[in-house]
Amino acid sequence: MAEIRRLSLNQATTEHWSVQQAIEGCVRHGIPSIALWRHKIKEAGLNVCVQMTRDAGLHVSSVCRGGMWPAATAKERSKRMEESRRAVDECAELDADSLVLVVGACREVPIADARTMVEDGLAALVPYARERSVRLGLEPLHPMYAGERSVLNTIDQALALARGYDADAVGVILDTFHIWWDPYVYEQIERARGRIYGLHVCDWLVPLPDVLMGRGMMGDGVADNRGLREAVDRAGYHGSIEVEIFNQTIWDTPGDAVLEQMVERFTSLV
Amino acid sequence: MAEIRRLSLNQATTEHWSVQQAIEGCVRHGIPSIALWRHKIKEAGLNVCVQMTRDAGLHVSSVCRGGMWPAATAKERSKRMEESRRAVDECAELDADSLVLVVGACREVPIADARTMVEDGLAALVPYARERSVRLGLEPLHPMYAGERSVLNTIDQALALARGYDADAVGVILDTFHIWWDPYVYEQIERARGRIYGLHVCDWLVPLPDVLMGRGMMGDGVADNRGLREAVDRAGYHGSIEVEIFNQTIWDTPGDAVLEQMVERFTSLV
Repeated sequence: MAEIRRLSLNQATTEHWSVQQAIEGCVRHGIPSIALWRHKIKEAGLNVCVQMTRDAGLHVSSVCRGGMWPAATAKERSKRMEESRRAVDECAELDADSLVLVVGACREVPIADARTMVEDGLAALVPYARERSVRLGLEPLHPMYAGERSVLNTIDQALALARGYDADAVGVILDTFHIWWDPYVYEQIERARGRIYGLHVCDWLVPLPDVLMGRGMMGDGVADNRGLREAVDRAGYHGSIEVEIFNQTIWDTPGDAVLEQMVERFTSLV
Repeated sequence: MAEIRRLSLNQATTEHWSVQQAIEGCVRHGIPSIALWRHKIKEAGLNVCVQMTRDAGLHVSSVCRGGMWPAATAKERSKRMEESRRAVDECAELDADSLVLVVGACREVPIADARTMVEDGLAALVPYARERSVRLGLEPLHPMYAGERSVLNTIDQALALARGYDADAVGVILDTFHIWWDPYVYEQIERARGRIYGLHVCDWLVPLPDVLMGRGMMGDGVADNRGLREAVDRAGYHGSIEVEIFNQTIWDTPGDAVLEQMVERFTSLV
């Protein structure tokens, strides 16, 4: 079973909570790590976030997120790149394990071109991140997001992109929701050895209630969180495991009830 | 541009029409082929369908569908297999190019076990189909259906399964909605050379309005139907191209208006 020392609250799970509330929640429930989202960091102020996580003794497993490179205009792409640099800065200040990169997608840009924009965006970001000792974690998103959120859709594809850089510069973030269906997922996890920067868990509900907000708590769906976590362990990753759940019902539930269930499910099912 | 002689109306596009109405619609709009669904064949009667398609001079590109093998009990699996044999029979009677296999998925069966049930189901069906000269077309479905409809989710995976049999016994059915996102889709189509039994087109809408009913008319979304069709041509497939669209708005539109737009979009965009 997964040890609670590896558990990290990804702040997306408690969307209604501020950074301060999420930190206090982690402390109350014995959760040693947290992953912060940039819009929440902005609300609280970066320096305050740095101070609060330190004071609480919390480890920051990741900052979400950089990337989102494909865009219809050069001006917009330039703006996105600037945002990614700010994300790197925040990641460095918070001493997070890695910056999560959700690479983006754009209705106006053909998918092949969007993938080229991602390659170019990553190439431009890597030197900036290396100077600040920030590791960049490419997160492949489920293929159903290829039109809207991410043209990076499989572990295989993420590894092909990451391998253009040193193993301590660019890696992959694996999320069971995004990868559970892959017929070669266990082979791909093994191939990711040395490049795994993070693991996210939640569950795939059947029937899928919603494309964006349809994720479930571990145990409520069909993803083999235990099997996938063990495979990631075997591939040499022993770091934090974030619980990241986008689900309106969970967002509408009091945060302490969510964290209580999350700890219970994590320690018994992951 | 795709020639209209390759166009086939997959009956799912005009769900509100009977077989007779769909056949008459094809004749009115100069569509030379049709793909029939089994629940519609049952309503009309198999012999009537055979006679009507012959009288109308229509080619039957496929029968939808066999498969759906994974199930929680042996009894249910046996029932599904019996249904697949009936689907083969109907395919033979209608002289269709192939039987479309949607392999199924089951909430109660872990995905790895479900994939084994699919392998076993196919192995049991192939001899029966060969005796009746019916070709079996494995259709990989989009990974978002892995929990509900199909544990066969990529061209690569479908080819691995098909290659256990002769190239004139088991092949693949490619649907742009299901495969457009694949980072290696063009390489995979080339690898499918000699095994491509059919091509389905529609479009991927952004944002995706619904998991099951969110498909769009060609040109309304982001799938590169032209590029994918040309790649399939280059890989040696020159048979029928079905338009298969599950979309409530299209289902609520008068069938003749749907067929008119379908012919226009097919000849100008596919």
